[in-house]
Amino acid sequence: MDHQHAHAGGPASSGRQPVVGMVGAGQLARMTAAAAVGLGIRFRVLAAGPDESAAQVCADTVVGDYRSAEDLLAFAAGCDVVTFDHEHVPQAQLEGLEQAGHIVRPRAATLRFTQDKLSMRELLGNLGVPCPRFEPVSSLEDVVAFAESTGWPVVLKAVSGGYDGRGVWVCGSPAEAAEVLSHGLQLLAEEYVHFERELAVLVARSPSGHGAVYPVVQSVQRDGICVEVLAPAPGLSEATALDAQRLGLELARDLDVTGLLAVELFQTRNGGLLVNELAMRPHNTGHWTIDGARTSQFEQHLRAVLNLPLGSTLPTAPVAVMANILGGTDPDLHGKLNHVMAADTALKVQLYGKPVRPGRKVGHVTALGSDAAQVRDRARRAANYLATGTEEAAGELVDSEGIRA
Amino acid sequence: MDHQHAHAGGPASSGRQPVVGMVGAGQLARMTAAAAVGLGIRFRVLAAGPDESAAQVCADTVVGDYRSAEDLLAFAAGCDVVTFDHEHVPQAQLEGLEQAGHIVRPRAATLRFTQDKLSMRELLGNLGVPCPRFEPVSSLEDVVAFAESTGWPVVLKAVSGGYDGRGVWVCGSPAEAAEVLSHGLQLLAEEYVHFERELAVLVARSPSGHGAVYPVVQSVQRDGICVEVLAPAPGLSEATALDAQRLGLELARDLDVTGLLAVELFQTRNGGLLVNELAMRPHNTGHWTIDGARTSQFEQHLRAVLNLPLGSTLPTAPVAVMANILGGTDPDLHGKLNHVMAADTALKVQLYGKPVRPGRKVGHVTALGSDAAQVRDRARRAANYLATGTEEAAGELVDSEGIRA
Repeated sequence: MDHQHAHAGGPASSGRQPVVGMVGAGQLARMTAAAAVGLGIRFRVLAAGPDESAAQVCADTVVGDYRSAEDLLAFAAGCDVVTFDHEHVPQAQLEGLEQAGHIVRPRAATLRFTQDKLSMRELLGNLGVPCPRFEPVSSLEDVVAFAESTGWPVVLKAVSGGYDGRGVWVCGSPAEAAEVLSHGLQLLAEEYVHFERELAVLVARSPSGHGAVYPVVQSVQRDGICVEVLAPAPGLSEATALDAQRLGLELARDLDVTGLLAVELFQTRNGGLLVNELAMRPHNTGHWTIDGARTSQFEQHLRAVLNLPLGSTLPTAPVAVMANILGGTDPDLHGKLNHVMAADTALKVQLYGKPVRPGRKVGHVTALGSDAAQVRDRARRAANYLATGTEEAAGELVDSEGIRA
Repeated sequence: MDHQHAHAGGPASSGRQPVVGMVGAGQLARMTAAAAVGLGIRFRVLAAGPDESAAQVCADTVVGDYRSAEDLLAFAAGCDVVTFDHEHVPQAQLEGLEQAGHIVRPRAATLRFTQDKLSMRELLGNLGVPCPRFEPVSSLEDVVAFAESTGWPVVLKAVSGGYDGRGVWVCGSPAEAAEVLSHGLQLLAEEYVHFERELAVLVARSPSGHGAVYPVVQSVQRDGICVEVLAPAPGLSEATALDAQRLGLELARDLDVTGLLAVELFQTRNGGLLVNELAMRPHNTGHWTIDGARTSQFEQHLRAVLNLPLGSTLPTAPVAVMANILGGTDPDLHGKLNHVMAADTALKVQLYGKPVRPGRKVGHVTALGSDAAQVRDRARRAANYLATGTEEAAGELVDSEGIRA
């Protein structure tokens, strides 16, 4: 794909538009591209191919391999700042970009903690942040010994990467653990947390140290995939919400994050919080901010990596619910928009331009309003219809945990 | 500029993304491109050059001449629908597109009324729509005769086109009228309306006849350029607002508009409404909807031309004020964002990627809130700072008409 380099290269001079390069061209880069339009910047993506989600909408798409030092250096040439829509760029390549003088946000030393789960857990432990118990394991004996103190199931996590598109396995028995161990990955055993629900807090931090935090949300997962996000988390005490927000801001500072930091949390049955995962990029639990907050997470990420003042995180409505559209068997999403848009004129739809495959995230919807149960029903019905082409009765709309907003 | 045609051509089939082509690549096309991202469609623009405002952000830019039948037909090939960011495509070319089987929205017969102001005035007269008095004129004698009944000044308008980038002249004397007449344009004389203020109503209409109307706004002009839009129009009676909205919806129906229709109105000193101008595209008086309404005018235009159900026009805040950023002498807009964003974290900025030239619209800001005077001050201060790099004192922020929100 041809692209314009007319504005690339050289220091920022009068009238020149800053160039932000994002490595990766999935839906996160796609939605960041839309946010870049308003900021009047030039936005460039590194895509694996010309038809990836963000490449479809981005005027400046470079096709290349994010694992290749050569491709990354060519991509970064002329970018004022390089940032990421995923955490899979090898650490050596990130350091290579910095050594070549490119501004990488977040920086390589910080991104390491999203790539190496053992480092992340050790760091969080050193910072005194509450986490599930964990132990590096390299044999079935290690896993069985760990399970003696935590009980089964045991969660095994790949320290980096994974196989079959997964990096987390809940193992109910030594036999299941043995199967995961047989793939020869570096692994971490974690305590299986019998949580009440999952929460997430999203923070932005700029290089000058300015931080901003969004309202704490609840995420609802099904089969390990986020299906819904409720903003704000229903029934969360103000004290716990403030604890989560403070934790997010402190982690962003302690890890020297520049850009977004999403912190996924378990809320345990006694109300306490444990850190589950970290991501340093726009995050599925923040998609509701496109319509539900004064500044979307995508605009916020761009402001942060450009060291612009961060935007207001205030909500635009009392309640927002985001529901992911998970691909079904019908490849035609557009044919189903008519029904959904006619049924709910205030519904906001984001489609990612990705071919439909069963279970794949191909878009999301956001509903806004005042009545939490109604807003949630609107979002779920629309997402379900777009996924399956069928209407669910409201009575069936109880998630696996039986929690209602 | 190279572009992808992989998804172009053929009827809409399962999983295919609709392709919308917009002729013109100014800021209206740029902001429409951003709205297209969420709808998961393919958006193509016809640009005069690869660095135009929308071409900077659109993955599928075709460079060509909107006056050329050949370029238009090549552009339209593979588009499911063709629409416009300006009204300058010659009527013969619009008809040629339709004769070649392309779907043009709005259709050529409807667009004619935005290209030929005499036809528009005659049609409005036939429909019984209140307008300023008018008369086609071809000589100074005609103008002087017209002025005998209306008094001076007289407004002369080019029936189509104009010169020096203008198509409207307020002539205070026969000598001024003679100068305009000397350019040999086809002209229309209009009564100079001593209006109280200018209002605008924005309507969307889909091919199936579905209509949607936004709240009526006030536009504040300075030297013939829109500088601010106040949404909703402050102090407007509900009866007059409903009259204006009904007028907009009826005009859209009577003209068979598909897409947006912006109706610029004069509110006279006795409170009555007169139609000033019509536009059938996203309009400067609707920019506040990006942040201030549940569905932006850009998304709404796309929904309308694709015959999708129209979105909610409800406001997201009690008051929205949009202020245009008019270019000053400093070409560096980005260097001034820091100050504006730090001073007002909830301010929304849209920059158009256009080189700064004095008086040129290079972006806009929108402020939202509850207190009309405060919201207006926030928007004006920010737009003024981005334009001039200086802070105005609040006391100086009274517009030429002395109207305060």
